[in-house]
Amino acid sequence: MKHRKILLAMLLTSAASILSAADNQPAPSHGIDYPSEWQKWASIAVSHRADNSTLRVILGNEIAVKAARSGKTNPWPDGAILGKVVWKDTQLKNWKAATAPGQFVHAEFMFKDSKKYSETYGWGWSRWVGLDQKPFNKGAQVCTSCHTPAKNSDWVFTVPASFPKTK
Amino acid sequence: MKHRKILLAMLLTSAASILSAADNQPAPSHGIDYPSEWQKWASIAVSHRADNSTLRVILGNEIAVKAARSGKTNPWPDGAILGKVVWKDTQLKNWKAATAPGQFVHAEFMFKDSKKYSETYGWGWSRWVGLDQKPFNKGAQVCTSCHTPAKNSDWVFTVPASFPKTK
Repeated sequence: MKHRKILLAMLLTSAASILSAADNQPAPSHGIDYPSEWQKWASIAVSHRADNSTLRVILGNEIAVKAARSGKTNPWPDGAILGKVVWKDTQLKNWKAATAPGQFVHAEFMFKDSKKYSETYGWGWSRWVGLDQKPFNKGAQVCTSCHTPAKNSDWVFTVPASFPKTK
Repeated sequence: MKHRKILLAMLLTSAASILSAADNQPAPSHGIDYPSEWQKWASIAVSHRADNSTLRVILGNEIAVKAARSGKTNPWPDGAILGKVVWKDTQLKNWKAATAPGQFVHAEFMFKDSKKYSETYGWGWSRWVGLDQKPFNKGAQVCTSCHTPAKNSDWVFTVPASFPKTK
């Protein structure tokens, strides 16, 4: 009976490990786990950068979207995650005056935790590159140096867009 | 006993009407009910129109997002709802080369039902204007005439953006 229990435990451990491999998340970026299902998050803003010809949508987890919609973003609350999804510009086929998303570039995330990330201005900084979502691991200073102009708005460039209140 | 039942029915009707008023949805546009909580929908694409200086995010309900992510959009499936949220251009304060959402203009929706809306190319067309979401009721032909260049892509201008697969 004891041996059967051990065998069962071993089988369950194997099953769990197989399930975990099937889960197949991209490896961490700067030690931060991949935020699963961010593709379903709601929008906070969009932007179009003329200096590098990219279009972006800025998404947020529930905490971030709630903060954005209610204007409580300086500082953003702990637990907020902001995602910036970036594509190269292309022209919309049926409306030439419209710029639309072309090649996918990367998805970048800021994870607010004022205590855990106190050394990087209260945010964890991460990026996954390309449609295969390769983790970026060249150091958070790459992110923070570029974000310095936004240091007075809690290191976030995005000004949340105006949305009609949820009804 | 009969009178009691009638009284009860009257009370319940009043209660329902009060609840409905409290719900406070904007009035229908072209006979179509306001899609509640669209502000929480996931993104399908973004666009920037140079001809009228507006930025847009294109959102979808679950059916639409699933179709967009799997490339099954010509035709879009019945039940799909597409939302286009439009803002006037502004310049991002801390990054001058970026255009960002300024004044909110309107939110427009296409409701796919090939049978119900067979006379308007399989879509119900609606729009709610301004942050107070005033219903637009000038007729679906205002929408369809502008969408004619997209008639070969099921009357939809948007080409869904590439997203990494959900993991």
